[in-house]
Amino acid sequence: MNTKREPSGEEKLIERFFKPLAQHPGALALSDDAAFLTPPAGYDLVLTTDMTVAGVHFFADDPPETIGRKALRVNLSDLAAKGAEPIGALLAISFSGEIDEGWVANFSRGLGEDCVAFACPLLGGDTTKTPGPLSISITAIGKVPSGKMVKRAGAKPGDLVVVSGTIGDAALALELKKRVLSGGLGDLNKPQTAELMRRYRIPEPRVSLAPLLREYANAAMDVSDGLVGDLNKLARVSGVSARIETAKVPLSNPAHDAIAGEGVLLEIALTGGDDYEVLCAVPESRFASFAEAAGKAGVPVTAIGSFADGEGVAVLDASGKELAFQKASYSHF
Amino acid sequence: MNTKREPSGEEKLIERFFKPLAQHPGALALSDDAAFLTPPAGYDLVLTTDMTVAGVHFFADDPPETIGRKALRVNLSDLAAKGAEPIGALLAISFSGEIDEGWVANFSRGLGEDCVAFACPLLGGDTTKTPGPLSISITAIGKVPSGKMVKRAGAKPGDLVVVSGTIGDAALALELKKRVLSGGLGDLNKPQTAELMRRYRIPEPRVSLAPLLREYANAAMDVSDGLVGDLNKLARVSGVSARIETAKVPLSNPAHDAIAGEGVLLEIALTGGDDYEVLCAVPESRFASFAEAAGKAGVPVTAIGSFADGEGVAVLDASGKELAFQKASYSHF
Repeated sequence: MNTKREPSGEEKLIERFFKPLAQHPGALALSDDAAFLTPPAGYDLVLTTDMTVAGVHFFADDPPETIGRKALRVNLSDLAAKGAEPIGALLAISFSGEIDEGWVANFSRGLGEDCVAFACPLLGGDTTKTPGPLSISITAIGKVPSGKMVKRAGAKPGDLVVVSGTIGDAALALELKKRVLSGGLGDLNKPQTAELMRRYRIPEPRVSLAPLLREYANAAMDVSDGLVGDLNKLARVSGVSARIETAKVPLSNPAHDAIAGEGVLLEIALTGGDDYEVLCAVPESRFASFAEAAGKAGVPVTAIGSFADGEGVAVLDASGKELAFQKASYSHF
Repeated sequence: MNTKREPSGEEKLIERFFKPLAQHPGALALSDDAAFLTPPAGYDLVLTTDMTVAGVHFFADDPPETIGRKALRVNLSDLAAKGAEPIGALLAISFSGEIDEGWVANFSRGLGEDCVAFACPLLGGDTTKTPGPLSISITAIGKVPSGKMVKRAGAKPGDLVVVSGTIGDAALALELKKRVLSGGLGDLNKPQTAELMRRYRIPEPRVSLAPLLREYANAAMDVSDGLVGDLNKLARVSGVSARIETAKVPLSNPAHDAIAGEGVLLEIALTGGDDYEVLCAVPESRFASFAEAAGKAGVPVTAIGSFADGEGVAVLDASGKELAFQKASYSHF
């Protein structure tokens, strides 16, 4: 007599591919309108959101598992730079055209592996369709001991300008993609170009640096829009100037070789973005301890310059000459 | 000597139009990578996210101030149905094509007025561009006394099926839009059609019901995908059946007149969605007190049926005959 409605395609999709990622008890297995979270006592929550769009932040034909990973990782990178450990994430996704279940399976597998690897379960979400390109919006929630979020504002004159990992790989990968018809970047071999592309597709959020940033950094942010432009933002909001030396900027082996072969690629590496490395201000007297602790945590950090009174950012080449850039960082507008 | 980089177009847009909405201290005036939130002691946080896309959830030519309001309100509706009061929201927005500053000004004005009206300041966000339609993803954060979130699962046999406000207005407005070339809905006059369109564009999140739902409801959700389908979801996850009578479903004056003129519109009203009313399960013995308290809070509530053992949802017409629907609710897939 009663009609029992079958779950819709949307509900089945969520049940099959996203519910397994929702291991947090507050996610209620994605069967509710919202998630609940009992905040850990003595902690502040840290909240960040990033929208990634096919053709803008990733290529529509990137492997779906890397698209899922990148969408989460760019948010985890923000949390890490704030000194925060992940608690969970919400996913809103607009699918483009017909649902390809194989695609969704690989997307959710990549995302799910990272949810586990970074202890960041899915708390909730929303699935919809769009006549436009695939769009993914993730909101990540992290925690820091109360009052301890590491802010962008806080760099002091005399602090060192410090970055994690290597700079420019993802921007060079993008340049490589652009040049694919005209022959790639100089003499890079196949493993080198693959390494750059991996860095573009699967950024490495520096989660293990989070507690060290709380201990050592006066200010921090993640480098997403280009080192020079992001350093400008950090310096401006801190009310200081900064000066860095290109010779000190840490480069991967492929980035080093690409730039050695073609000097103008340096500008792309320093301003292109998508690095998802940590940029921070560390008192000079504490840098050695910070670097040692970071090394033990598996993340090399490098001092590339220093902050001072004043305003603006100067980038000095090996001869001490100041470089001028056409565009200091990526901006959507 | 130092080059001081000017803020980018993106930064200027945020500074001018979105920073005024970021009144929460943890938002850091949108000058950081993330927001922080000191959770109120004794409360759980409630988290929800919804993506709205032009051409799917609203019309690209809707007034921009209503687009901003609706994007926030659909999330506040989720919070209200969970018994939660808003704390703040994060906004990720992908603009389509060239930025129209007049459009953004009106969008942010509408959104900002609602941030104030609902005490839900902007905590953070992300702006980007898309080659597709305008897409807006909002994550809202609310609070409930610890352990008190009202869930979908929890309806008990004997509970009444209760809805707030009126059902079907937004779905009828959509039908009206579809029929615009063929002459509209029956004999509705201009104020009546305007009222339906207003309900589609500016839903009314039932925030004032939140504390009453915690006190009176065994289960609740908001009606976003159609009354019949959403009731099915609530019944299924609660492990009960439900039966409602169409004659009891509260209708606005324009919806009443439209359906009186054309009976088949009833199905659209009951299954079309976009109501953003509360659907809840209330013990029969407590309904009178709930209705009185809700009325005092400014939101009429109506009992339209009851839950029982079993499964499935039956919708009975005025003669007691069970209605069959082609599609019980809106699904994107």
